[in-house]
Amino acid sequence: MMIVPIFFTCFLLLSSSHASVQDFCVADFTAPEGPAGYSCKKPATVTVDDFVFSGLGIAGNTTNIIKAAVTPAFAAQFPGVNGLGISLARLDLAVDGVIPFHTHPGASEVLVVVEGTICAGFVASDNTAYLQTLEQGDSMVFPQGLLHFQVNGGDTPALAFVSFSSASPGLQILDFALFKNNLPTALIAQTTFLDVAQIKKLKGVLGGTN
Amino acid sequence: MMIVPIFFTCFLLLSSSHASVQDFCVADFTAPEGPAGYSCKKPATVTVDDFVFSGLGIAGNTTNIIKAAVTPAFAAQFPGVNGLGISLARLDLAVDGVIPFHTHPGASEVLVVVEGTICAGFVASDNTAYLQTLEQGDSMVFPQGLLHFQVNGGDTPALAFVSFSSASPGLQILDFALFKNNLPTALIAQTTFLDVAQIKKLKGVLGGTN
Amino acid sequence: MMIVPIFFTCFLLLSSSHASVQDFCVADFTAPEGPAGYSCKKPATVTVDDFVFSGLGIAGNTTNIIKAAVTPAFAAQFPGVNGLGISLARLDLAVDGVIPFHTHPGASEVLVVVEGTICAGFVASDNTAYLQTLEQGDSMVFPQGLLHFQVNGGDTPALAFVSFSSASPGLQILDFALFKNNLPTALIAQTTFLDVAQIKKLKGVLGGTN
Amino acid sequence: MMIVPIFFTCFLLLSSSHASVQDFCVADFTAPEGPAGYSCKKPATVTVDDFVFSGLGIAGNTTNIIKAAVTPAFAAQFPGVNGLGISLARLDLAVDGVIPFHTHPGASEVLVVVEGTICAGFVASDNTAYLQTLEQGDSMVFPQGLLHFQVNGGDTPALAFVSFSSASPGLQILDFALFKNNLPTALIAQTTFLDVAQIKKLKGVLGGTN
Amino acid sequence: MMIVPIFFTCFLLLSSSHASVQDFCVADFTAPEGPAGYSCKKPATVTVDDFVFSGLGIAGNTTNIIKAAVTPAFAAQFPGVNGLGISLARLDLAVDGVIPFHTHPGASEVLVVVEGTICAGFVASDNTAYLQTLEQGDSMVFPQGLLHFQVNGGDTPALAFVSFSSASPGLQILDFALFKNNLPTALIAQTTFLDVAQIKKLKGVLGGTN
Amino acid sequence: MMIVPIFFTCFLLLSSSHASVQDFCVADFTAPEGPAGYSCKKPATVTVDDFVFSGLGIAGNTTNIIKAAVTPAFAAQFPGVNGLGISLARLDLAVDGVIPFHTHPGASEVLVVVEGTICAGFVASDNTAYLQTLEQGDSMVFPQGLLHFQVNGGDTPALAFVSFSSASPGLQILDFALFKNNLPTALIAQTTFLDVAQIKKLKGVLGGTN
Repeated sequence: MMIVPIFFTCFLLLSSSHASVQDFCVADFTAPEGPAGYSCKKPATVTVDDFVFSGLGIAGNTTNIIKAAVTPAFAAQFPGVNGLGISLARLDLAVDGVIPFHTHPGASEVLVVVEGTICAGFVASDNTAYLQTLEQGDSMVFPQGLLHFQVNGGDTPALAFVSFSSASPGLQILDFALFKNNLPTALIAQTTFLDVAQIKKLKGVLGGTN
Repeated sequence: MMIVPIFFTCFLLLSSSHASVQDFCVADFTAPEGPAGYSCKKPATVTVDDFVFSGLGIAGNTTNIIKAAVTPAFAAQFPGVNGLGISLARLDLAVDGVIPFHTHPGASEVLVVVEGTICAGFVASDNTAYLQTLEQGDSMVFPQGLLHFQVNGGDTPALAFVSFSSASPGLQILDFALFKNNLPTALIAQTTFLDVAQIKKLKGVLGGTN
Repeated sequence: MMIVPIFFTCFLLLSSSHASVQDFCVADFTAPEGPAGYSCKKPATVTVDDFVFSGLGIAGNTTNIIKAAVTPAFAAQFPGVNGLGISLARLDLAVDGVIPFHTHPGASEVLVVVEGTICAGFVASDNTAYLQTLEQGDSMVFPQGLLHFQVNGGDTPALAFVSFSSASPGLQILDFALFKNNLPTALIAQTTFLDVAQIKKLKGVLGGTN
Repeated sequence: MMIVPIFFTCFLLLSSSHASVQDFCVADFTAPEGPAGYSCKKPATVTVDDFVFSGLGIAGNTTNIIKAAVTPAFAAQFPGVNGLGISLARLDLAVDGVIPFHTHPGASEVLVVVEGTICAGFVASDNTAYLQTLEQGDSMVFPQGLLHFQVNGGDTPALAFVSFSSASPGLQILDFALFKNNLPTALIAQTTFLDVAQIKKLKGVLGGTN
Repeated sequence: MMIVPIFFTCFLLLSSSHASVQDFCVADFTAPEGPAGYSCKKPATVTVDDFVFSGLGIAGNTTNIIKAAVTPAFAAQFPGVNGLGISLARLDLAVDGVIPFHTHPGASEVLVVVEGTICAGFVASDNTAYLQTLEQGDSMVFPQGLLHFQVNGGDTPALAFVSFSSASPGLQILDFALFKNNLPTALIAQTTFLDVAQIKKLKGVLGGTN
Repeated sequence: MMIVPIFFTCFLLLSSSHASVQDFCVADFTAPEGPAGYSCKKPATVTVDDFVFSGLGIAGNTTNIIKAAVTPAFAAQFPGVNGLGISLARLDLAVDGVIPFHTHPGASEVLVVVEGTICAGFVASDNTAYLQTLEQGDSMVFPQGLLHFQVNGGDTPALAFVSFSSASPGLQILDFALFKNNLPTALIAQTTFLDVAQIKKLKGVLGGTN
C-alpha cells in the first residue's frame, strides 16, 4: 500500500520550508542582539523549557525600603518571549509596600490583582491623574511611557501579575534615574526645581554621587 | 510676584500640543473601526473607568461540556487597551476542564497559573509538540497563530490569567471552526481526512449543519 | 573641463551613506537569525541571482495522497525577499487534489488561479465559513492566521500562485499538527473531541506515535 | 441530555468577544480613511465577495503607446485586502510592451511570469542595476521604493502577476511624475539636468503644461 | 496621430488606483482619530499648505520661569505629518533657560543646535546618565521614553530644532506630571520619597491642588 | 542603619532586568546587520559619544556641479540612532545650488530652513506637484518614497536640516540611478522615453557606461 511513502514525498516538499519558519525566536544570549531583540537559538536546540518560566511562582523579597519587589520575566529572563511582543512580571507589595513612580519606555502594561488591594495610578501628558483602588480580580492598563505607580492599599500583602506589550519593556524608576547615579546636584536642581537639600537627602539614601 | 503668571505662559505654549497627544486611544464603539483598532473617544470624555476592568474577578461558569470558561478583556470589553497592543483573559478550568485546541490569529499569548495545575501545549509549524505541566506561579508562552490547548492537570479547579500581544487577538476554536457552521460534511472530510461519521457526530453536538 | 572631477566630489559625499543603505537585506543563512528575519549578506556579495527565484516554474509532484504540492519561495528558499514582508508559493492541484485545512501563523495570503478551477475557503473567528469557486484569473484573500483550504474544483489540473504578507509566513497543516507527532492519543481526544479510533487511524496514515 | 444547551452557554461566553475580532477589516469606502487604511465594514455586512476579486482574469488593453497595461487589485479595488498588508496586480505586455521606470512608495513587489519572457530590473541606492531576463515561472523581487521596470523580452505577449507588501502600495511612474503635470519646464531642467527640448517633447506626448 | 488618445487609455487604467493611494494622510481634525493617527482629508481638498508649517520660524516666548519655550509641529499643528512617523519642534532657550526633565512616551528625539550652546542629557534604564555640551551644529539623540533635559550652557540665547520618530510623540514634563494636578500630596510623597514640604512648595508654584 | 543594604537588595532584583533593556541599540558595525538595522554594541561599551554627532556643524563642499552638498547622519554615520526610527542630514545649497530629484525608499522627510530661501517640491502618485518657496524657519514634509527636490531660491547660500522617519532612509538620486551605472542606453531609452542623445549626454557627464 502506497499511502505512507507517497505522503512522505509530500512531507519532504512541505518541510523544505522548515528552516524558514519563524514561529518563534527563542533568545540566544551568546549571539548579537539587534533592534528587534536577541538572535534566535537554532530550532534544533529549542526545548519546552524555553517557553516555560517558573520564577513568577516565588514571592519577591519585600524586606526592603519600599516593602515591595518586582520579579521580571522579560526576554532576558524568559527566552521564549523574545520577538513575540509580550512579557510578564510579578509584583509583591507587603503592607505599606510601594512601587514608586516609574515608566516603561517601550511598552504598555496591564495589571491584574491576585491578592489584596492595590491603589494604582498614572499621569497623562496633559497632567491628568487617573487613580483607582483595585480589588482582587480587577485589572488596569497603563499606557506606554507614562509615569505610573502601585501602592498596597490594604492591610494585607498584595500580589499582582503584570504583562507588557514588549518582550523588553524597560523600566525607569524615577527616583533611581534622578538620585542613584552621578548627575550633579546642581544640574538636578536646575532641571527638576527640587531643592538642593532634598536632592542631597535622596542621593544619600540611594547612593547617588556628585 | 510673577512666577505663576509667567509659568502660565509656558503652560499655554506647551499644552498647545495637548490635542495631538496620543497617550492612549480609548475605544469609541460608536465610531468606525479601522485596521489599527477602534476610533478613539474624545479625551475630554475619558475617565479612569475606561482603564479599569473588573470582569476578570468573577469566575466563569464552567458547568458546560468543556468544564471550562474563557472570560475575555479584549478591546471590545476593555476599551482602555484599544491601540496599545495588549489585552487579557481569565481561564477557569473545573476538574477535567479543557480549553480545546485553538489559535489566536493576531497575537502571542502568555499564561500564568494562579490556582491549581494546568497541562498546556502548542504545536509548531514543523509539527513538534511542546507540552508542560504547569504549577501555580508557572508561566508559559504560546507563539502567535499556533495551535494550543490547556487542560486541568490536577484534581482541584484551576485558574489562570493570560495576556496577549494585541488588543484584539482573535480566538479560533478548532472544533467550532470545523463543526459549528454550515461547511458541507463532504468538504470537511476532504480537507481534514476525518471520517464522515466522525464529522456528523461532532456537528450533532455542536450544532453544525449541511 | 572640470565637470567630471567636481561631480566626483559630490559622489563621494553622497556615497558616504552607502554602507547604511538598507534597500534590501538578502538573507545570509550562515549568520544569526533574529526576530525580524535573517542577517543580511554583505552588499558587495549580493548579485541579481539573490533577487530571482526559478523554482516556481517547475510543477510540484502531485503523485501523493493529497494529489497536490506546495512549492514555497519563502526567505529560506528565496533570500532576496528576506526583510521585505512578502513571499510566494506555487500550488499544484491534480484532479481531486486538496491542500487540506491549514494556517499561516505569520501572514495573510492572496491566491491567483492560473489554470483550472479551485474551490477555496476560510473560517473566521466567529465560525462563519467563506467559500468560493475560483476560475482562472480569480483571486481570493485569506486573512492572517485563519484556517483555510484549497481543493481542485474541476476535472483538469489546477495551478495557482499565492503570495504572503511576510517573508516567512509559516505553514501549520492541521492534520500534521494533530496526527504527525508524538501527542498522546488521549490528549488529542480530550482537546479535539475526536474519537480515539479516528485519531489512531489518522496517526497510522501520517506516522504519529503515542 | 444536556450537552447541547450546556455547550451553548460556553458558546455565548466565548462569542462575547465576537465584536472585537479583527480577523479582517474589509474596506468601507463611505467612512473615513486613516493612516492604516480604510475603515472596516460592519462584520454583519461582509460577504465572501469582499474577499474575491475577478478583475485579474481579464487581459488589460495594451493598444496604447507603452503596449502594456497594469490592472491593480489594491484595497481600492479589492476591499478584502484592506489592512492585511498585501495586494496584487496583473501586468500585460504586448510584443515590445514596456512598464516604464516607476516606484511603489509604500511596498516591495514580487513578480511571477505566467506567459512569455520579461526583462526586468531595478536600481539600488548605490546606483547598481540588477537586471534579469525572466522566463515563465521565474519570479523576481523589487525592494520597496526603488526604481524598476519591466519589458517584454520575447516575441509573444507576456503576462505576469505581481504582489505587494501593502494593501495600498502606490505607483509613481517616472515619466508621468515629471512630464504629465504643471511642473515648470525650467524647474524640471534644473532638477533633472535634462535638456529643455527633451522635456518639452515629452510634455507634448504626455500632456504636461508650463 | 494616435499617441495622445492611446496614452490616455493607459492613464485611465493606471489612475483607477488613484483613490487608493496612501502617499500621505493629511489630518482631518473633524473626523474620528484612531490608534494610528487622525483620519485623512479627502485627497481633492489637500493643498501644499498642508505640507508646509511656518510656525517654527517664530521664536517662542521665553519670558517665563524656565526661560525657555517649546514650539511643537506635531500632527495636531502640522497636518501633513499625520501618519508619516515624523514631527518637529523648536526649542528656544534664553540665557539660563531650561527644558526640565521630561519624556516623550511615543518617540525618540534628535536635536540639532542652530545657535548657542546646549547642555543636554538623558538617563537610561540602568540609571546611567549620558550628558554632553553641544555646540552649534552638534546633534544628539534621546532614545524613546527616557527622561532627558536641555539647558542653555552658554551666555547667549540658544536655538535648536528637534525631530521625533512619531507624528504625535507626546510630552510628559516631570514637574507638571507630579505637581500640576490634583494628586494628593501624601500619595506623591509615598511614590516619590520627596518630603511633603518640597511637594507643597512645588505645587504652590505650579498650581497643583490636594 | 539598614536602609542602604536593604535598598541594595531591591536594586539587585530590579537590575536583573538590566541585560534585557533595549533602551537603545547603538550600532556595532562589526557584527551582522539584519532587516531591522545593525546589531547592538554591548551596553558596557556604549558612551555618550555614540549618541552625539558633530558632523552636521561643518558646511558640505558645494564647489561641484550641483553647487550643493548633502551630509548624512544616518545610522552608518551616527550609531546612536540605530533602531530608533529617526536620522538626520544637513543640506548646503550655494547660490543656484540644486538637490536634484530623488527619493528616500525607506522614510518620510521633514526639512527646516535655517538660512536662506529654498524652493522645494514633491510629486504625488497621481502626478500632482506640490511646490513651495520656503523661508528661514519654514518646514516642509516629503512623504515616503515620493520624488522630491530642493533648489536654492534666493541669492545667498541656503542651509537646511532634514530629518527622516528611519535610521537608514536610503537615498536614490534619479540622475545617478539612470545615468551613473552600466544600464544599456537602449534600455534606458525604452523605459524612460528619453532620446538616446540625451541619455548619452548625461552618461557622459556622470560616468555611465554601455
